[in-house]
Amino acid sequence: MGEFTADKSHPRYESLLSRHKLEVAASKGMLADSALIAHGRGEAFDYLLGEATSENAMLAARNALAHLMAAKRPIITINGNTAALAGKELLQLAQALNCPIEINIFYRTEQRISALYNHLEEIKDIHHITTEILGKNPDAKIPNLEGPRANCCAEGIFSSDVILVPLEDGDRCEALVNMGKTVIVVDLNPMSRSAKMASITIVDEVLRVAKCMLNYLSSDEEIDIDIDFNNQNNLQQSINIIASNYIN
Amino acid sequence: MGEFTADKSHPRYESLLSRHKLEVAASKGMLADSALIAHGRGEAFDYLLGEATSENAMLAARNALAHLMAAKRPIITINGNTAALAGKELLQLAQALNCPIEINIFYRTEQRISALYNHLEEIKDIHHITTEILGKNPDAKIPNLEGPRANCCAEGIFSSDVILVPLEDGDRCEALVNMGKTVIVVDLNPMSRSAKMASITIVDEVLRVAKCMLNYLSSDEEIDIDIDFNNQNNLQQSINIIASNYIN
Repeated sequence: MGEFTADKSHPRYESLLSRHKLEVAASKGMLADSALIAHGRGEAFDYLLGEATSENAMLAARNALAHLMAAKRPIITINGNTAALAGKELLQLAQALNCPIEINIFYRTEQRISALYNHLEEIKDIHHITTEILGKNPDAKIPNLEGPRANCCAEGIFSSDVILVPLEDGDRCEALVNMGKTVIVVDLNPMSRSAKMASITIVDEVLRVAKCMLNYLSSDEEIDIDIDFNNQNNLQQSINIIASNYIN
Repeated sequence: MGEFTADKSHPRYESLLSRHKLEVAASKGMLADSALIAHGRGEAFDYLLGEATSENAMLAARNALAHLMAAKRPIITINGNTAALAGKELLQLAQALNCPIEINIFYRTEQRISALYNHLEEIKDIHHITTEILGKNPDAKIPNLEGPRANCCAEGIFSSDVILVPLEDGDRCEALVNMGKTVIVVDLNPMSRSAKMASITIVDEVLRVAKCMLNYLSSDEEIDIDIDFNNQNNLQQSINIIASNYIN
């Protein structure tokens, strides 16, 4: 895998860097076959959103962060694409929130779990992060889900009250909501099943979301739960951004 | 690479079959690294279009076919994703039109050209197709393009008057238009540079387009050039379909 050499002035620098990160992750065995296709779908929606964090996405991220900070048992889950695109930043967020990370993949194989675990442990070493990484030895199941994707850790996802699940599958999002958790999803498609099912949907790119939350944490601002937050309205605002790009 | 086993009744059968075809193509060395990401972008736009051939796409395909039939030197070009998704159908179309195919890839390597050539020759053998496959030994250049992507065949792309270039890059589409050719593009994003540059843009999935053209050819209908065709209006109709999916 070659070094990434694109110049920062390249108009597609961020996009090319994301692709490079995914190529590296694929070569490490971290990704399922469908991962690059899923990333392409995300690219299309990001393009329609103007490849920028919208005001409503920022408010959703802020409210999500407030819920994570106020939680008794917050947790952040990481799958292949999330680990590749924003592994470092989500580990930094978990460290700041003093919560664990759980590796949480849809097409579960031991080889991929190990590749992801090693990737995250490497980041921890380099950046002096002490966050616990769960998911290697699942000992609980998410109710009403079949197959390996139901596997989770009793001390992690299973007993969490507020859960940040970036790039989550719709079925699993629904099952987590049905467990009574506050489920925070990051999804570039405001009309996806996950986006519609979640308690809070941040319609934005996962790396921008993680950086946005880290910025909030390092600022002096009070981060309070927004009791007027309405996810339906939040999604509609992202839909309006896309529609206005079409109509004009 | 496993056999494709999904049931035809599966609501995502076509989509899963396309992914399977791309996995097989990747294992044969036919695809560039960016191919799966590009397919994912296409999936997102196809989803927004309702995953169906619109009426305006059908009219664009019909008009494109009329131009190919009336051409002195028609040609169909094939790249990695096109070969994977609709190689057989485009070869059948070329056979019916009695025109050559030219392999035409953006990130040109001899290994990928050979893999594509062998894949297409295999299809020809199985389906008793005699179409000539150009592109292995380029001996001409598309003016105003730099690097290997300018390479083409003097007897093929270079001297063609009507050219069907599915899933084409914007720069190369523009260069072909500037050579005075009638350039027919297949693109699921009605706002892409290729879509805007082309003489005729068919906003639809490449396999559906190829099948649609084959159906027209096997029908008794007269296929005449639509002298009132306006590509700007055609694109706007596809944009309206996407926008209406958002607004309602």
